[in-house]
Amino acid sequence: MAPHRALAYAQQHRPRFLAELKDFVRFPTISSQPGHAGDLKKCATWLANHLRRIGLESVRVIPTRGHPIVHAAWQRAQGRPTVLVYGHYDVLPADPIEEWRTPPFEATVRGESLYGRGACDDKGQLFTHIKALESYLMTERSLPVNVKCLFEGEEELDSPNFAPFVAKNKRQLSANAAVMSDTRMRAPGRPAIGYAERGTLRLELEVRGPRQDLHSGNFGGAVHNPLQALCEMIASLHDDNRRVAIPGFYDAVRTWSEKERDYMARTGPRDAEILGDAQVEKAWGERGYSLYERTTVRPALTLNGVVGGHQGSGVKAVIPARALAKLSFRLVPDQDPNEIGRLFRDHIARISPPAVRSTVRLLSGAKPALINRDHPAMRAAAFAYRKGFGSSPVFLRSGGTIPVVDTFQQILAIPTVLMGFALPDDRIHAPNEKFHLPNFYNGIATCIWFLAAAAKLRGARPAQKEAEWSVAYGD
Amino acid sequence: MAPHRALAYAQQHRPRFLAELKDFVRFPTISSQPGHAGDLKKCATWLANHLRRIGLESVRVIPTRGHPIVHAAWQRAQGRPTVLVYGHYDVLPADPIEEWRTPPFEATVRGESLYGRGACDDKGQLFTHIKALESYLMTERSLPVNVKCLFEGEEELDSPNFAPFVAKNKRQLSANAAVMSDTRMRAPGRPAIGYAERGTLRLELEVRGPRQDLHSGNFGGAVHNPLQALCEMIASLHDDNRRVAIPGFYDAVRTWSEKERDYMARTGPRDAEILGDAQVEKAWGERGYSLYERTTVRPALTLNGVVGGHQGSGVKAVIPARALAKLSFRLVPDQDPNEIGRLFRDHIARISPPAVRSTVRLLSGAKPALINRDHPAMRAAAFAYRKGFGSSPVFLRSGGTIPVVDTFQQILAIPTVLMGFALPDDRIHAPNEKFHLPNFYNGIATCIWFLAAAAKLRGARPAQKEAEWSVAYGD
Repeated sequence: MAPHRALAYAQQHRPRFLAELKDFVRFPTISSQPGHAGDLKKCATWLANHLRRIGLESVRVIPTRGHPIVHAAWQRAQGRPTVLVYGHYDVLPADPIEEWRTPPFEATVRGESLYGRGACDDKGQLFTHIKALESYLMTERSLPVNVKCLFEGEEELDSPNFAPFVAKNKRQLSANAAVMSDTRMRAPGRPAIGYAERGTLRLELEVRGPRQDLHSGNFGGAVHNPLQALCEMIASLHDDNRRVAIPGFYDAVRTWSEKERDYMARTGPRDAEILGDAQVEKAWGERGYSLYERTTVRPALTLNGVVGGHQGSGVKAVIPARALAKLSFRLVPDQDPNEIGRLFRDHIARISPPAVRSTVRLLSGAKPALINRDHPAMRAAAFAYRKGFGSSPVFLRSGGTIPVVDTFQQILAIPTVLMGFALPDDRIHAPNEKFHLPNFYNGIATCIWFLAAAAKLRGARPAQKEAEWSVAYGD
Repeated sequence: MAPHRALAYAQQHRPRFLAELKDFVRFPTISSQPGHAGDLKKCATWLANHLRRIGLESVRVIPTRGHPIVHAAWQRAQGRPTVLVYGHYDVLPADPIEEWRTPPFEATVRGESLYGRGACDDKGQLFTHIKALESYLMTERSLPVNVKCLFEGEEELDSPNFAPFVAKNKRQLSANAAVMSDTRMRAPGRPAIGYAERGTLRLELEVRGPRQDLHSGNFGGAVHNPLQALCEMIASLHDDNRRVAIPGFYDAVRTWSEKERDYMARTGPRDAEILGDAQVEKAWGERGYSLYERTTVRPALTLNGVVGGHQGSGVKAVIPARALAKLSFRLVPDQDPNEIGRLFRDHIARISPPAVRSTVRLLSGAKPALINRDHPAMRAAAFAYRKGFGSSPVFLRSGGTIPVVDTFQQILAIPTVLMGFALPDDRIHAPNEKFHLPNFYNGIATCIWFLAAAAKLRGARPAQKEAEWSVAYGD
């Protein structure tokens, strides 16, 4: 049954949908900054009220140890399958703020795009699902499938409270498949479904030397400098072939068949496209692999930040007492973040010079994820894209990390359909993040078609009775 | 003629002298922070009023392009030599502020020390000369020599406006010798006269990569990271023998005779002392040299700071667009800062990876300085120390840099007597900087004796007529 009335409704209400999305983007929901906790709470409440207004039920703002999870459901499709819709309403910090052409939390339309932090990652993409549900509920008074929505506020922190929450509420969250939109298309008009995400391991390396900053005139040349030692250790973490030079690091990395590499070469972005997206001229990285492979099936170690010594203007002649590096690995099947953390820690212990003291702090990790391209939910998504965008999606690997994909696989035993609407140049995590508005509108249509197609998913589960939600802590 | 009355006066007025020094230290005269420009002006005015009150003449606060120079003189000792007293009233920033046991600009006495930013470097040491002059003028109504005082507010910025000022006012500043107190003693009760300072070259190395920060999931492994490239370049600037690995860097470094190295070994601090001063356990640096040699007759390159990528808490998964390192060389005879700057720039151009762009900015430089240990003014200072501290000073090299020594040598053709009263553990440039009060009081006595002894300096020049002072700019 084609969802004509829902599609017509979505078409009709575009201006209002955009205005609502702008309201959503205006909440400065920076999850990593404690000062914004109140903004996340307000945004969660706004979202919950919105979900109630469009006809969803069991709407709740569920507290966690961190930022709240927003839940909603519609479970009146007796005997039909259940789709779990996931998204996140938190965003990264907007710095460097001076590089934004318009304020990051103003939500400004320029040309065909909405500019703002979170416009694309993930408020805009999350909103496509909400507007699809609204379009159905407001026209049909029902949905073709049962739906459970979970929108979290800590994705940009690697979802520390989400997996425990899912584990505690495993029964209530049972579904046939999860769907989320937080990944990229190939290009405008060229949709894509994600089937692989890299894992991650985030850590800090601190090096301490003198008890306090020393005068570099008095001691320069006789006392080791922890900032220099840090740079030297970091420099040694890549070899001349730009491979990670930590013993054992590649041991668990899966070798892919020629068939898979051919598929990737046919469907994935070419080197020039990736460089174009990044707006850089020259490539870098491990020899023997395309840039698409380097960013998806090959692991990487990125130095995300260094803080040490004098930070102000000019030069202050000190040997700093300490220095700190912020690093993150991107991991691929079958690397395990815990094992990589152990290798890193052991390696630093081996290479740390005797005149300084090095400390490794593992901050968070997530396993790499793979989704079967032939799963019925993936086919339903492909069908929906053909309807919503008028062209067949390719299946794409992503270099990023979405820890919940692994969470849903491990705890709920369901695949996650990564039905992304972001463009490669949407500058997520960077200044002037944007969301391409044609993708917003086609995305809503695609989500409507996905709900329709998902009705045919096998293994339908009965709707759940309402129950108390367990939160991540307590019991 | 022994200066008994001046010495007695100085002894009598110690509590007031200390109270005045505390007032002096309380001005937050951080020359590198534009927000403190008003504080430097206020401090200069306070200092000028103070100099007037103790009986000095021609007192002026002379504006420069930066912070003002305070001038005072007493030129009524017809036919006697002239001593130029130099000091600086500006200080370094107090960060990291949280490591101070008492606020840096409160000036707090604990035990035998006065704690505060600038207590030692250089307000406390500068003040010994002022109090010596006061003690003479208040008891004898005259000085045994002609005196010209120049106190600048930009020493911690490498005195950018001082040398031009001296050059413009060469005639008015003519003298037989300069004296300053901004160096270290060997230990409490063990005075020292400086006879060598290392030169310096301060610079910034900026590395730019992508136009803006990139998502390290999407691009990690395929795009070079300017922060990593910076670390790798910095790591390559020292070889395995901890020598500076810039071609040609050691070409002009003077080799010292066994006799000089023996003198240094006899008079200078032992390795254990230097480590003790630095409060570190393990030495570092160039093989084949004592730590005293490494910090005085051998050059050094110190990484003073790195700023790049995410600076806040946690890890933000970016490939940063740019990274900046702040570096400073310490140079020794006969290295020239301009030549070293050229070598550094050429070297970076050679080693900078093709996927990033590197820029070197030379900020300031000063030549190394050497003073003849046998100059009569040095002998006068040695005599003064024997009287003021009751023990003979050793002649010491310093690893630091005092650009004005070179300025006075080049422009006024006079030696500078480095009559320091700082202790090795006074933590100049670091949190909890202090000035050992016995050194303050003995320092005043030493300065009184120095004025007395300087009367015998040869080559006395007549006192100058008053003239308009040229400032560093204009004509």
